[in-house]
This record gives sequence, C-alpha cells and structure tokens, in this order.
Amino acid sequence: MTLISQNKMFGGVQSVYEHRSAACDCDMRVAVYLPPGSRLGLCPTLVWLSGLTCTEENFSLKAGAQRAAAQLGLILIAPDTSPRGADIPDDAAYDFGKGAGFYLNARQEPWAKNFQMESYIRDELTAWMLANLPVDPERIGISGHSMGGHGAISLHLKNPQLYKTCSAFAPITSPTQVPWGQKAFKGYLGADEQTWQAYDCTHLVKTAPSRAHILIDQGTDDNFLDVQLKPEIFKTACAEFGQSLNLRLQDGYDHSYFFIASFIEDHLKHHSAHL
Amino acid sequence: MTLISQNKMFGGVQSVYEHRSAACDCDMRVAVYLPPGSRLGLCPTLVWLSGLTCTEENFSLKAGAQRAAAQLGLILIAPDTSPRGADIPDDAAYDFGKGAGFYLNARQEPWAKNFQMESYIRDELTAWMLANLPVDPERIGISGHSMGGHGAISLHLKNPQLYKTCSAFAPITSPTQVPWGQKAFKGYLGADEQTWQAYDCTHLVKTAPSRAHILIDQGTDDNFLDVQLKPEIFKTACAEFGQSLNLRLQDGYDHSYFFIASFIEDHLKHHSAHL
Repeated sequence: MTLISQNKMFGGVQSVYEHRSAACDCDMRVAVYLPPGSRLGLCPTLVWLSGLTCTEENFSLKAGAQRAAAQLGLILIAPDTSPRGADIPDDAAYDFGKGAGFYLNARQEPWAKNFQMESYIRDELTAWMLANLPVDPERIGISGHSMGGHGAISLHLKNPQLYKTCSAFAPITSPTQVPWGQKAFKGYLGADEQTWQAYDCTHLVKTAPSRAHILIDQGTDDNFLDVQLKPEIFKTACAEFGQSLNLRLQDGYDHSYFFIASFIEDHLKHHSAHL
Repeated sequence: MTLISQNKMFGGVQSVYEHRSAACDCDMRVAVYLPPGSRLGLCPTLVWLSGLTCTEENFSLKAGAQRAAAQLGLILIAPDTSPRGADIPDDAAYDFGKGAGFYLNARQEPWAKNFQMESYIRDELTAWMLANLPVDPERIGISGHSMGGHGAISLHLKNPQLYKTCSAFAPITSPTQVPWGQKAFKGYLGADEQTWQAYDCTHLVKTAPSRAHILIDQGTDDNFLDVQLKPEIFKTACAEFGQSLNLRLQDGYDHSYFFIASFIEDHLKHHSAHL
C-alpha cells in the first residue's frame, strides 16, 4: 500500500492510503483517522460509506467527525465510492459509473469486471484494515450517507457478525422503488428485478432483521426526500418485522455535509456505546 | 446582495452572499454563519481571513468552527481572499494575484484598480455586515490563517477600536522579511520598502501595540515555518514592545485545515471571552 497523505488532527492522525483491490481490479483509496488512543491497543472502528459523486475525501474534509472520534477512541475508515482509473468504464451521469458504485457486485458488462464494491468493502477492505491498522475485529460498525446509507444498512443486515452496529444519514432505504436505485440496479445487475432484492434495505429487513438498533437522521428540507429516499417505506417494514429503528426527522436540514456535521457526534456515540 | 447558498447547521444557518464592492470594483462573496441565538439580538462576531489560494468557502467547509460558534453564540464572517471575475488581473503564481490579495491596498498597476482588500475588509465588509446581519459593532474580533493571519494581526493593530480581539493560525508575522511577503509587497506596493511597513505585523506591533491579548497557534511540522512564517521575529518584538502574546507551538501539526480544525474551538473561546 502507498501513503498518499498524512496530517495530525485532534492528537491523532488523518491519512489517505492507496491499496490494490483484486475485486475491482484497480487501485483504491481509503481515508483513515486513527485517534490518539489507537497507539495503545485495538480500537472500535466505524466504516463510513459516502454518497453519489463523493470520493474517499468528502467525509474526512467536511464532516468534522475526527473531534468526537478522538474523544471516543474510535477509528474512522472512509473508502471511495467506486473503482477509479483511466481504464475503468464510466457514464456521463453523476448517478451511474464512477462515483456511483452503489456498494454492490455488478453482473452486467462493461461494469462487472471492476464494479465489485460489495466484495471490496466487505472482504478486501476488512482484511486490509485488520492487517494494517489497530482495528478490533469484534467492534466494527458501519454508517453512511444517501447511496452510502443504503450501502451501510444493506451490508449490516447481510453481515451482522461483521458490522455489529449501523446508522445512516438520509439513506436510500428502498432502492428498488426509487429512480436512483432502479437506474443503477438495472445497469449493474440487469433487468431481472428479482436479483435486485439482495441490495434493497427494505427487502433485507423483512427477511433478516438484525438485533442491532439502527439510527437514521433525515433532514426535512432534503431535496431528495420524497422522490429518492422515502424513509417511511423502511420505517413501516422495520415496525412490521421487528427491526429496532430510531428514525429522527431533523427539522429544516438538507442533504449536505452541513447536515451531517451537525449530527455526526450523535452517530459516533451511538456506535461507540454499542460496540 | 444575492444569496448564493444557505444550509442549516448546528441549529443556525450557514450562508454565502455576493455583494458589490466599490473598493475592489467587482462582486465579492462572503460566507456567514449565524448561530441559533442570533435570532434574539446582536451577537459578538469573528471575521476570519483565509490564506493563499483560498476562497470564502474553505473556512466554512473545513474548519468545523460552526459547532463551537453555535454554542458560544458567535457569528462567523469569512470573506474571499482577493477580488474575483474574468476582468480582474491575475498572475500565474499561486502566491500573487487572485487568491492572494494580502489584505492590503495595492498602489501598482494593473493591481491598484481592484486589489483594495484592506479598504474592502475594514470599511465595506464592516458596513455590509452591520447593515445586514445582527452583528454587535462593539464586539467584533478578527482571526485568520497564514496570509490571513498577517491580515488579521495587521488589521487589528491598525484598528483596535474596530477589531477588539485577535488571534491567528500560522500567520506570516513579518512579511517584509520573507519571500511571500516581499514578492507580494513589491508587486502590489512597489519597490520602496518604506511603504511596506504599514502592512508588516512586526513593524506595527513596535509602533502601535494593542491592549488585547493575541493568541497564535503554530504547528511545529509546518512546511512554511522556517522560511515564510518565522513567528520568533514577532514574538521578540511583542516582548520588547509590551504586546501581550500567547504563541503556542503545537507539536507535529502542519499548515493544513486539519490543524486549524484541531484548535479552532480554543480560538473561538478566546474571542468570545474577550468580546
């Protein structure tokens, strides 16, 4: 692996690394914050999945999460949102191709060769951070924003032994029922909608609710709320199938990192308390 | 004035406005954070001056200052670092021309027509914020980073009745004695070095020390420390001429916003306590 940048922050270290992904057949970047306490032993760790158009940088530059992470002794891991490189296929739209990997394993060409983000995050990133960082394998949680909220909830529900805690900001909670998800799933997975279910949070929570308590923050002034996010669909499914959920509607907040920064401390405390 | 963007954050509102500057003969952008308490009456206010290459955005996106500002009831005002627009003269270097206004009034052509940043900040921005925001005129402080640290200290020392408190991160404290300052002052002000003194913090503190206590944070791993920043020159002058100064050398920190984010709360508390 290659160290791209390193900056001291709140007594700990914010770094960006580049490492090889066999699943995505390219080099991937990942931002890592190590709190000061990580010098002393294994730490609880939060994996953060960003939303459409983001890279590994947005969370570490804009969310202000390192302050609370330093206090709580929590490692932060923020991977990129898709494979990258000149030879990686792309699409002109912001919501498909690079920057829009949707944390799934693509089956359609030309995407299948590189867009294996589920395998990359779940298997390769986990192995990489356990091999290279003081990550406690028994205390890993997952969170994310928008497309990354969909990724966090679905990866948690499918792998509750790996990702023991879960939260999200403004997640796409029923991707098979909204335009962003339908476009991406058709493109990456194909026209057979049956195969989409494995990546739909609302379907997953019906078949495999977790024992964890999920925290979601959703701004009421979010431009994407009514068309793309639709948290009420997920809330209904959680209530029906026994999934513990705290869906907080935050009055007047939008879809931006200004919203995330305002409540990230609550999310870090949620993970820290349950890990 | 035009509202460019507005986002709820920590219960308050982060905005960007554009307004006309007669001094710079162009439209200028300014980022404003209003804490929740600003609905109730006039608030203490901190003007933040950014460094080379920055715009009005860097501080509000990366410093994480709004959290403490919301708690302290402090308004944050972050103007741009130079005049902007297609018809504004520029230079290919990052440390001269656009993004490098040095908070002075240029006297050389082609800069003199637009690069009047001292007048813009001191006169126009002050009048604008008093007319349009709940800013208490008796409780205004000033801070900044690098080139903006030079701007903050020199504006404070020249206008202690306007900017009652002062702090800085990694400021250029003796611009007439370092390459960044010498290049900019020669270009904007001309070859007569006598005229440069009006913008040199170390000269100003000798002729007009203020009654305020100045807080400076400087990272020991800052790449620019030994060649461009040289805080020891300023510290010696402060000691000799009775200027109260707390120069904190922060072990292992660099010149980035990761450093600023780590200590911005201390600076906001410094201003809040003395305003």
